[in-house]
Amino acid sequence: MYHQPSQRTSYGAPSHRYSQSRPHGYAPPPPAGSPYPPQQLHHRPSQSQSSAHGGAPDQARLWQWFCQVDTDRSGEISVNELHAALINGDWSRFDIDTVKMLMGMFDVDRSGTIGFNEFQGLWKYIVDWQKAFKYFDRDGSGTIDGHELANALQNFGYNLSPTLMSLIEQKYAPAPIAGGGPKPGITFDRFVRACVLVRTLTEAFKTRDTDHDGWIQVNYEDFMVMVLSAP
Amino acid sequence: MYHQPSQRTSYGAPSHRYSQSRPHGYAPPPPAGSPYPPQQLHHRPSQSQSSAHGGAPDQARLWQWFCQVDTDRSGEISVNELHAALINGDWSRFDIDTVKMLMGMFDVDRSGTIGFNEFQGLWKYIVDWQKAFKYFDRDGSGTIDGHELANALQNFGYNLSPTLMSLIEQKYAPAPIAGGGPKPGITFDRFVRACVLVRTLTEAFKTRDTDHDGWIQVNYEDFMVMVLSAP
Ligand SMILES: [Ca+2]
Ligand SMILES: [Ca+2]
Ligand SMILES: [Ca+2]
Ligand SMILES: [Ca+2]
Ligand SMILES: [Ca+2]
Ligand SMILES: [Ca+2]
Repeated sequence: MYHQPSQRTSYGAPSHRYSQSRPHGYAPPPPAGSPYPPQQLHHRPSQSQSSAHGGAPDQARLWQWFCQVDTDRSGEISVNELHAALINGDWSRFDIDTVKMLMGMFDVDRSGTIGFNEFQGLWKYIVDWQKAFKYFDRDGSGTIDGHELANALQNFGYNLSPTLMSLIEQKYAPAPIAGGGPKPGITFDRFVRACVLVRTLTEAFKTRDTDHDGWIQVNYEDFMVMVLSAP
Repeated sequence: MYHQPSQRTSYGAPSHRYSQSRPHGYAPPPPAGSPYPPQQLHHRPSQSQSSAHGGAPDQARLWQWFCQVDTDRSGEISVNELHAALINGDWSRFDIDTVKMLMGMFDVDRSGTIGFNEFQGLWKYIVDWQKAFKYFDRDGSGTIDGHELANALQNFGYNLSPTLMSLIEQKYAPAPIAGGGPKPGITFDRFVRACVLVRTLTEAFKTRDTDHDGWIQVNYEDFMVMVLSAP
């Protein structure tokens, strides 16, 4: 079998590689796909950017926001309440698949709803991704185009081939990308989902690539599990 | 390596197997994922069920429908026009990902829009899936639950493990499936997407499983292509 070194490095050692490819000290958002509240940003531990008000918002303020989302006052946020509350910069609603992904990450006790404790992790995760989105939306268009997406994924340690980048852009842009006409950019919630997908699939592959040669042997059942477990 | 015969048959020879498991002569919808207009239904070539009016609708009627969807009268249906036109039985809109999947199948000339010729294939595809949906919604609830989905996929030739069925149900049900409370059923558009995903992934796997032992060897790039090419 022929081993392609470029295949191997294309997903290898992201943590090492993205610190190299981050000359300006941008700290990426929390590990996408992590079931836990994200880590603090490395390079801006408690500065003005960690919330609009400097530092983490206090509990009272978070509770206010929680109550605004919990429209039926049940003390828990349902998937529908979360779906109604989350909007992109262009006022479009999040896809239900993004909302479900977030529920899957932060509904730690698997109650099917988000309690206040769970909400704090969710809130921070979204704020961190919003920062990343603003950072990588270099032209300030409010959406992420193919170049901006490639830059973001590279920053996160994923050097994907042009073929893969093009497939990801096709999948997450809001409309098919036709010849001619401006390409529609990727909205916030789909940008997050794209990044989490790449991370989840790459991790699933790496876990199985025990000899690190860039190839795996997989049966049908496990292949389907890998794909169906991803967002 | 240990070969599991059950793995092998779980995706093998669907066309043979589903004709066996179809005692009442139900013909499944067109091959999901086919980029071409679907075949005629086998067992009801031109009977009353092929449209509400008996036989295929005439061109004049199809043109009327086309014009209703083409709200800006450009002579082509855009992804936004299609998104606005397509609704589920519960009046919810199709997910943008389902709309994009349909565009990808029926925008044969890759113009980014659906012309009238393309519309005829799209129309028939949706009608055929609507028939399948009604057939497999055994309790007439207007949505597809886990049992109904398993039955549908079995009918289409996919004998998936309980683990995979549960992952598919989790992925395509509109909300996370929590303990307690009624499970939300799968809407029409997500049912179609689920079936097309299973078919696309299974075909991708089979193509690479040249010795039919239920295992494939795949590198990172190709693995990502397999997943990102699926809806
Ligand atoms: Ca509530
Ligand atoms: Ca919970
Ligand atoms: Ca941009
Ligand atoms: Ca139009
Ligand atoms: Ca076209
Ligand atoms: Ca049902």
